[in-house]
Amino acid sequence: MELFNDLTRRKELFTPIKEGEVTFYSCGPTVYDFFHIGNSRPFIVFDVLRRWLEYLGYKVTFVQNFTDIDDKMIKRANEEGITVKELAEKFIAEYYRDAKALGIRPPTVAPKATEHINEIIDTISKIIKNGHAYVSEGDVYFDVKSWPNYGSLCKQNLDDLEAGARVEPGEKKKDPLDFALWKAKKSGEPFWQSPWGEGRPGWHIECSAMSSKYLGENIDIHSGGVDLIFPHHENEAAQSEAASGNNKPFVNYWVHNGFLLIDNKKMSKSEGNFTTARAAMQKYPPMAIRFFMLSAHYRSPINFTPEALEQAANGVARLKNCIDDLNFASKSRVDNNSDFDIQIFEKELTDLKAKFTDAMNDDLNTAAAIGDLFGVVHLVNSSLKDNAALPEKFFELSKSAFDFYNDILGLPGQDENLSELDENEIENLITERTNARKAKNFKRSDEIRDFLKSKGITLEDTPQGTKWKLSVN
Amino acid sequence: MELFNDLTRRKELFTPIKEGEVTFYSCGPTVYDFFHIGNSRPFIVFDVLRRWLEYLGYKVTFVQNFTDIDDKMIKRANEEGITVKELAEKFIAEYYRDAKALGIRPPTVAPKATEHINEIIDTISKIIKNGHAYVSEGDVYFDVKSWPNYGSLCKQNLDDLEAGARVEPGEKKKDPLDFALWKAKKSGEPFWQSPWGEGRPGWHIECSAMSSKYLGENIDIHSGGVDLIFPHHENEAAQSEAASGNNKPFVNYWVHNGFLLIDNKKMSKSEGNFTTARAAMQKYPPMAIRFFMLSAHYRSPINFTPEALEQAANGVARLKNCIDDLNFASKSRVDNNSDFDIQIFEKELTDLKAKFTDAMNDDLNTAAAIGDLFGVVHLVNSSLKDNAALPEKFFELSKSAFDFYNDILGLPGQDENLSELDENEIENLITERTNARKAKNFKRSDEIRDFLKSKGITLEDTPQGTKWKLSVN
Repeated sequence: MELFNDLTRRKELFTPIKEGEVTFYSCGPTVYDFFHIGNSRPFIVFDVLRRWLEYLGYKVTFVQNFTDIDDKMIKRANEEGITVKELAEKFIAEYYRDAKALGIRPPTVAPKATEHINEIIDTISKIIKNGHAYVSEGDVYFDVKSWPNYGSLCKQNLDDLEAGARVEPGEKKKDPLDFALWKAKKSGEPFWQSPWGEGRPGWHIECSAMSSKYLGENIDIHSGGVDLIFPHHENEAAQSEAASGNNKPFVNYWVHNGFLLIDNKKMSKSEGNFTTARAAMQKYPPMAIRFFMLSAHYRSPINFTPEALEQAANGVARLKNCIDDLNFASKSRVDNNSDFDIQIFEKELTDLKAKFTDAMNDDLNTAAAIGDLFGVVHLVNSSLKDNAALPEKFFELSKSAFDFYNDILGLPGQDENLSELDENEIENLITERTNARKAKNFKRSDEIRDFLKSKGITLEDTPQGTKWKLSVN
Repeated sequence: MELFNDLTRRKELFTPIKEGEVTFYSCGPTVYDFFHIGNSRPFIVFDVLRRWLEYLGYKVTFVQNFTDIDDKMIKRANEEGITVKELAEKFIAEYYRDAKALGIRPPTVAPKATEHINEIIDTISKIIKNGHAYVSEGDVYFDVKSWPNYGSLCKQNLDDLEAGARVEPGEKKKDPLDFALWKAKKSGEPFWQSPWGEGRPGWHIECSAMSSKYLGENIDIHSGGVDLIFPHHENEAAQSEAASGNNKPFVNYWVHNGFLLIDNKKMSKSEGNFTTARAAMQKYPPMAIRFFMLSAHYRSPINFTPEALEQAANGVARLKNCIDDLNFASKSRVDNNSDFDIQIFEKELTDLKAKFTDAMNDDLNTAAAIGDLFGVVHLVNSSLKDNAALPEKFFELSKSAFDFYNDILGLPGQDENLSELDENEIENLITERTNARKAKNFKRSDEIRDFLKSKGITLEDTPQGTKWKLSVN
C-alpha cells in the first residue's frame, strides 16, 4: 500500500524493514482525564490502518503508550487529592471503556511510562554517552545544536526556531531549544532514583525508550495527531537516533492525522468548544462517531458538527438495517431455484471489493472505501427488494462481504456498551436490585447501585422500570 | 490540475476564484546577500508551476516581493558602511542575474517593502480596527489569542506553542505568541512616519499588504519553502484575514517545497555547508542546477551532492546534444520519400505528451515529466540513428515537441550568462578593450574592465586571449 510520509511529504510505497512484519508505534493518551474527541480521531483511524495492514497479511506489533507521569498528571492528582498512580489507574480504565465503545482494539502492548523508568534511564545514558545530552544540576537536557538534522520532520530551520525561544534566568539549560530528558526531583512530586539523582522523566523520552524496547531501534510506522509533529515527534526522532547511534532513521514512515475542528474552529479550552469523547458518546451513538471519523480522509481537517454526526448516524443505521434485513430474509426467503442472477451479483461484489482495496491501499482512503461499502448496501437492498426469493449463495456472499468490510472498518461494532461489564451482566444486576428493593433489602440494592457506579454505569428509576446509562464526568 | 494544499494536507483539484485567472504570491528573497542554493529551489519549481498554469490557459498574475527592510538588512548595511537602500539595490540586481541564469522568469510584479509603507500602515490600521492588534509604546502587535484559528496552517495548538514561549522582562507585548506588525524607531535604523509614531514594519506584514494590493484580499495560490509555514505564513494568514474581515481564507492553496539537503544534512551556517546559488553556478552549469531541482518532486527533500549534480549535467548535455543533432540532420538528411513511419512516430510523441501532461497535472510531478521528455530524446535519437533520411515532418514534429517541453520546464534555457548584459555585448566590449590595450589607451581599457566589473563580470587575461567569468562574492 502507499502511505503519505511526513518525513518526505510524499506518498510512498510501504515496505517494512522485516518482510511480513510491521512495527507500529502510536502515541497514546496522557491519562489525567477522559480523552477528548479530537484524540479519538487518531485512535480510530490508526486502528483501521492496523486492521488493514493485518488484512494485507502483515504481522503487526502495535504499541501505544499511556503517559502516566507528567506535569498535567501531577497537577490533576494534587487537585483531586489522590496519588498520580490512582489517577492513572482510573483513566486507563476509562480509556479502555471509551475505546471499546468506539470499536478501537486494544494495542498489542500498552506500556506505561512509570513501569519503564529503567529503560528510560538507559536511553538517556546512551544519549549522554554519544555526546548529545548533558547533565545540569540534576536535570538532563538534549543538546539540540549537536543534532544537525533537528527540524527535518517538522521542516523548520534551527535559526527560525531559535528566534522565538529564550533561556529564562534561572533555567538550567545551555540553549533555549534544548529540552529535558530527566527532571530533578521537586518537592511533592513522584520521583525515581537515577545516575543523575532523584527525579522523573521529561515529556518526550518515554516514547523513545518504550518503542525501542518493544519494537527495536528502527521501526516501520509511527503515528499521531498532526499537532504532535513539533515538538514531540521531532524530539522523539532526535532522542532515538542519538541513542541508537546506528545512523538509521528511528522511523521509516511518519503518519499524522489532520485536525478535528468543532463548528469549523480549532478545539481549545479557551474557545469553550472542548468535548471529551465520553460526552460526545452521550449525544451520538459511538458507532456514528467512528463512522464520522472514517468518512473523511485521515489527513484532511474534519469538521465535527451536529449535522455531520446526524448524517453519520444515518449511515450507520442504513448499514445496520441492511444487515438486519439480510439476516431476516435469510430465514424465510431462500430458494435455490430462484432466477436471481448470482453470477452478476458476485461479479459486482468482486468489483466493489477491488475498488475498496484500491482505496485503502491509496494512503488509507477510508472516505472512498466507505463509498464502496455503501455500494454493497445498495446492491443488497435492491436485490432484496426486487426478488421474492433468493438463492442460498446470495446470502452467503452478502454476509461474507459485510463481514469483510466490517472487520476492516470496525463497523458497526459493539455499539452503545461503554462498560467493561457486558449488557447481560448489567441487566442481571438491575433485576437483582429491583427484586432486592421489592424485598426491602436496601443494603443489597444500594450495594448494586454503588458497584455499577464504580464501573461507570448510572441507574435511573422510571415508571417503566430501571434504565441504565454511562456516567458522565 | 491537482495541487497538494498544506491547509488540508491533501491533493485537491485546483479551481481558481475567478475563472481563467490565477492570483499567485510567492515569497521572495531578503536582499541582504546572494540567495542561497536552498532558496533557488522555490524560485525554480514555482517558476515551473507558473509556466504550467499559463500553458493550461490561465492568465497568471505572479507577485514575488523583495524584502528590503528587516534586521538582517540593517545589520549587513551597517557592517558594509552603506545605506540599506544601497544594499537592497545591489542584491536586487544580483537576484535578477542569478534568476536569469537559472531560467527563472521575472515576476509580473516584484514589489519592495520600502515602497509600500502606506499600504502596510493601512493594513495594520485595519487589523487594529477589527480588534486583532494593539499599540504598545510605539510598537504594534498582533493579538494571537484573539485569532481562534491561529495554528490551522502549521497544525499546532496554541497551548503547545505557548509552552515554549515567554515574554521577556522589558518586552512590550501582552502574550509571548504576539508578533510585531510595526516596530518603534531605534537609533541608527531607517524609519517612516506612522499613526503610532516613527518606526518600521515588522517581519511578516509586508506580504499581507502587498499581496492584497496586487492580487486582492483572497488569493488562489501562495507558495514558499516548507520552513516558511511557521511562523511566516501562519502569521501572514492571520494578518490578512484579520485585516480583510470578510471571513474568507486569505489563500485557497498553500503550496510548499521541501528542504534542500546538502550531503544529506540540512544546510545551515553552523554546519559549514552553506552555499549561495552564485557559488554553486561556478561549480556546475546553471542549467544542471535547474535540471537537478526539477528531477525530484517539489515536495520531497532533495539531496544536493556532486554526484547528483554531475548526473543532472549529463541529463542537460544529452538533451542539448539531441537537439543539436536534430538541427544538424535537418540541414542534410531531409527526404520526403523516406520509408520512415511518420504516423507511428507522431503517435508515440502524442502518447508521451499525454503522459507528461498527466504528470504535470498530478501536483506538478516534474520528476515523472522529465522522464517523458527523455522518452522523446530516446525516440528522436534512435530515429536519427536508424534512418539515413527522414521526412520533413519528422523534423517539424521533433522540434515542436522540444519547444513545448523546454518552454514548460525552462530547459535548456539561456545557459551560462549570468549578467544583465548579453554575450554579444560582453564580447564586443572585450574586443574593444583588447584593441585599446594594443593602442596603449589604458584609460579606456580600464574603463571597460571597471564597467564590466560593475555588471558582475570579471576578466582574465590569458595567452589565448581574454576570458570572462562571473564575479564571485
